[in-house]
Amino acid sequence: MTNNDFDLKSYFADKTIIIKNELTKIINGSNVSGQLLRAMEYSLLSEGKRIRPILCIAAAESVGGKQSDILPAACAIEMIHAYSLIHDDLPAIDNDLLRRGKPTCHAAFNEATAILAGDALLTLAFQVLSSVKLQNNTDSVIWLKIIHSISTAAGYMGMIEGQMRDIASENSQISLLELENLHSLKTGALITASVEAGAILANASFDQIEQLKVYSEKIGLAFQIADDLLNIHGDPNITGKPVGTDKARKKSTYPSLLGIVESEHYAKKLIKEALHALALFDNKSDPLRAIALYIIERKR
Amino acid sequence: MTNNDFDLKSYFADKTIIIKNELTKIINGSNVSGQLLRAMEYSLLSEGKRIRPILCIAAAESVGGKQSDILPAACAIEMIHAYSLIHDDLPAIDNDLLRRGKPTCHAAFNEATAILAGDALLTLAFQVLSSVKLQNNTDSVIWLKIIHSISTAAGYMGMIEGQMRDIASENSQISLLELENLHSLKTGALITASVEAGAILANASFDQIEQLKVYSEKIGLAFQIADDLLNIHGDPNITGKPVGTDKARKKSTYPSLLGIVESEHYAKKLIKEALHALALFDNKSDPLRAIALYIIERKR
Repeated sequence: MTNNDFDLKSYFADKTIIIKNELTKIINGSNVSGQLLRAMEYSLLSEGKRIRPILCIAAAESVGGKQSDILPAACAIEMIHAYSLIHDDLPAIDNDLLRRGKPTCHAAFNEATAILAGDALLTLAFQVLSSVKLQNNTDSVIWLKIIHSISTAAGYMGMIEGQMRDIASENSQISLLELENLHSLKTGALITASVEAGAILANASFDQIEQLKVYSEKIGLAFQIADDLLNIHGDPNITGKPVGTDKARKKSTYPSLLGIVESEHYAKKLIKEALHALALFDNKSDPLRAIALYIIERKR
Repeated sequence: MTNNDFDLKSYFADKTIIIKNELTKIINGSNVSGQLLRAMEYSLLSEGKRIRPILCIAAAESVGGKQSDILPAACAIEMIHAYSLIHDDLPAIDNDLLRRGKPTCHAAFNEATAILAGDALLTLAFQVLSSVKLQNNTDSVIWLKIIHSISTAAGYMGMIEGQMRDIASENSQISLLELENLHSLKTGALITASVEAGAILANASFDQIEQLKVYSEKIGLAFQIADDLLNIHGDPNITGKPVGTDKARKKSTYPSLLGIVESEHYAKKLIKEALHALALFDNKSDPLRAIALYIIERKR
């Protein structure tokens, strides 16, 4: 039931504006001002792909959910993603000075401000998730479940452990299995939590949630392989990131372990499996299908 | 109704063990191992005063609450406190190498690990707060409220903004009002959230919560004044921290703005007001009364 004519460009443009507007509204909704807030805004409102919040909304819509019910979760997840980028870029971790073609947070402000702005975005995510207007008491059980799922994915059993393994893997050869585990923690866990949160908030059935999780795990890995490939033959003017840094850091990547051609082949196989997981979904999941294809075709 | 014979030493000893056992149980409850977990444990399970979780439990008990219902909140708050210490100690912020007489987290491990262990403890706090066994749906509304209150206190409108102001205040003279605002954000907000969380979870009345908040704001400020005084004439063998660092950093402190004698006087006045806020509470709040007195008499 795939509609190949689905206009993903317009879909991304629409959702990106809605998400940015909501993020802006949240972050300007306080009386706070000063450097901390400016650093948070600088990183959160910069031009990202917004892939996680869009997946959250698209997953909800694929099972008939309403976008407005999902926005707090979508925004909280983007805040967690933004914080993780700020901290990953720090001198003690990746020591990156450019992100999306702009100075990274610590380069634009200073290191102390970047550490604290990251901390503040992570904390704000949970403030947003616990500030939702509840229609009834059952709602509150669902939101607690969402907070649990997101904090587990983002924490020491998920994203942060993935980042630790990523640091440890520099200058050392790891196996394909170790690389796959690393990425399923570092990027996969939060991508899956994004899709799961959208599905839960849209009252998806158990079976639907399971299929959507398979979809998200497959595209999560494919996303990382595409990232690795862009680090080899991407255009820095489009990606906003320098190329060749993985090789310079002697990082184990899919291309370094499998070769370029085999990596491309593997990414395509994963996307096919992701699409297969949506076989029983109707055309409301065309955005999810189009996103899966986009992930390996993207230039940034 | 104050009982001056209240044995605070035994009370602290009991609660400290209970809190440490619970923190140990939580942090060892996963399948995770490795350096990230070791760094989290190193900081979280070191010998702290546990003043925030003890206040949380004591506030609950003052209105008839049961300790076991409060423990998840008490532990989550201690995790947030532990994370804030790890990040504050980092080279880019306070650049401290000793904490409680032991190497700070980044000194014992490395900077990247300390940043991520802090992130992980902050995230784990929300995982704990959203993992509670719910007796009924009303419970879930209360826990969402607790998550909201704690995240607000710990975030960019509270503790983190206080830390930003603390950094900005080094090498610059600020007014007493600015100093008071700084500390009510940096330490006061989380202390108040600790007391409030305990009270809410124990089903305290609106009036009781308001009085407990007054109590916590007063002791929070007094706590900071006592810290400033210990930085002048504390014993490093007891405090585990070097003395004279505030003066060396040209930080504005209560003693630097008010003088030592006037600062001691002010702290005593605040404690008197804190005790006054508990005037209508019965002897179940003796621990809170004893803690208030301890705060200005403590040697560490």
